Amino acid sequence: MGLPKEVQNLSDLFSSLPSIGPKLSNRLALFLSVNGKSLASKLSHSLDEVVKSIRLCSNCSNITDTDFCEICTDSSRDRSIVIVVEDSLDLYNLEQTGEYKGMYQVLGGLISPINGIGPRDIKIDQLLNRLQDGEIKEIILALNPNLEGDSTGLYIKNEIDKLGLDIKLTRLAKGIPAGSDIEFASSQTLIDSFNSRVSF
Amino acid sequence: MGLPKEVQNLSDLFSSLPSIGPKLSNRLALFLSVNGKSLASKLSHSLDEVVKSIRLCSNCSNITDTDFCEICTDSSRDRSIVIVVEDSLDLYNLEQTGEYKGMYQVLGGLISPINGIGPRDIKIDQLLNRLQDGEIKEIILALNPNLEGDSTGLYIKNEIDKLGLDIKLTRLAKGIPAGSDIEFASSQTLIDSFNSRVSF
Repeated sequence: MGLPKEVQNLSDLFSSLPSIGPKLSNRLALFLSVNGKSLASKLSHSLDEVVKSIRLCSNCSNITDTDFCEICTDSSRDRSIVIVVEDSLDLYNLEQTGEYKGMYQVLGGLISPINGIGPRDIKIDQLLNRLQDGEIKEIILALNPNLEGDSTGLYIKNEIDKLGLDIKLTRLAKGIPAGSDIEFASSQTLIDSFNSRVSF
Repeated sequence: MGLPKEVQNLSDLFSSLPSIGPKLSNRLALFLSVNGKSLASKLSHSLDEVVKSIRLCSNCSNITDTDFCEICTDSSRDRSIVIVVEDSLDLYNLEQTGEYKGMYQVLGGLISPINGIGPRDIKIDQLLNRLQDGEIKEIILALNPNLEGDSTGLYIKNEIDKLGLDIKLTRLAKGIPAGSDIEFASSQTLIDSFNSRVSF
């Protein structure tokens, strides 16, 4: 015999979420069925709210519950500079630094042929369209420093070059993370930080 | 600026679930808001089903969607033997061995003064009531081998002794787990397996 079908169904749905394996999904389903029923009701309601209200910003594809996101509607921000990120969580992590007061472009993914994601599947066209009116002067790529991030950056660079606009294109520096230990840094990290060494 | 309030609320609810930290809860909330909306709707519906249908078996406190669970209503099972477990997941793990055809008692927790859980907060009374008609001849404690499991077992032993019934009380053997390596076994595990050595 197995779990009651309602609990099994809930567990199966949890296990199709990222980073949740079969043991944890069973644990969550059981918890919500026995001791967490009031939490289960709240969670159900919250999921309905998200399905109903959340969409992508018409300008930058950040998640929002209005037509344009909080950043795009903030008139105090610098519209001449755009940071390109993979998803809204990267955007919020950058926002938490409090250092940056420009705009964003959320791609909603990275080019990844192995996963069947091509340039048309992410919001590169939206970025290129935003360049047409000449307001944007600098684009900063803040994509993960791996194969997919690098290929996506390269593709964006080629497309911007084709437009023949005077736009500065940069990417975040690669190097040793603050608070880490050189002893444990990978070879590639050390090579990156050596090649990008700055005067002291 | 932060996440839209609907997404933040969903993330907060996820992070109040066991084993889900703030980073994973943000990731889940974002996934369900953007790419996983159809999954979000299914999850919401499934949670409602669980809240509506799941209750505890009137006999053994296993989770069920009927009055009595599948095990208690199975007339082919041996009613003279009861395994005592902490929760229904332990029960299903034991069921998956396919070796055991008796009954269960789900406690719904373990005695834990530090967490404010006393003997009256778990289903020990339900177990003791089940002993009254004399049908149960053996009780096997299958509680986690730690302080809480041991104290709960001891409490149950004392209560059963008080009843003065002729019931055999055993617990699962402690020892070296199958497929593991003696090199990495803890001292306590080695002591347990030494003390419980069997003829070869």
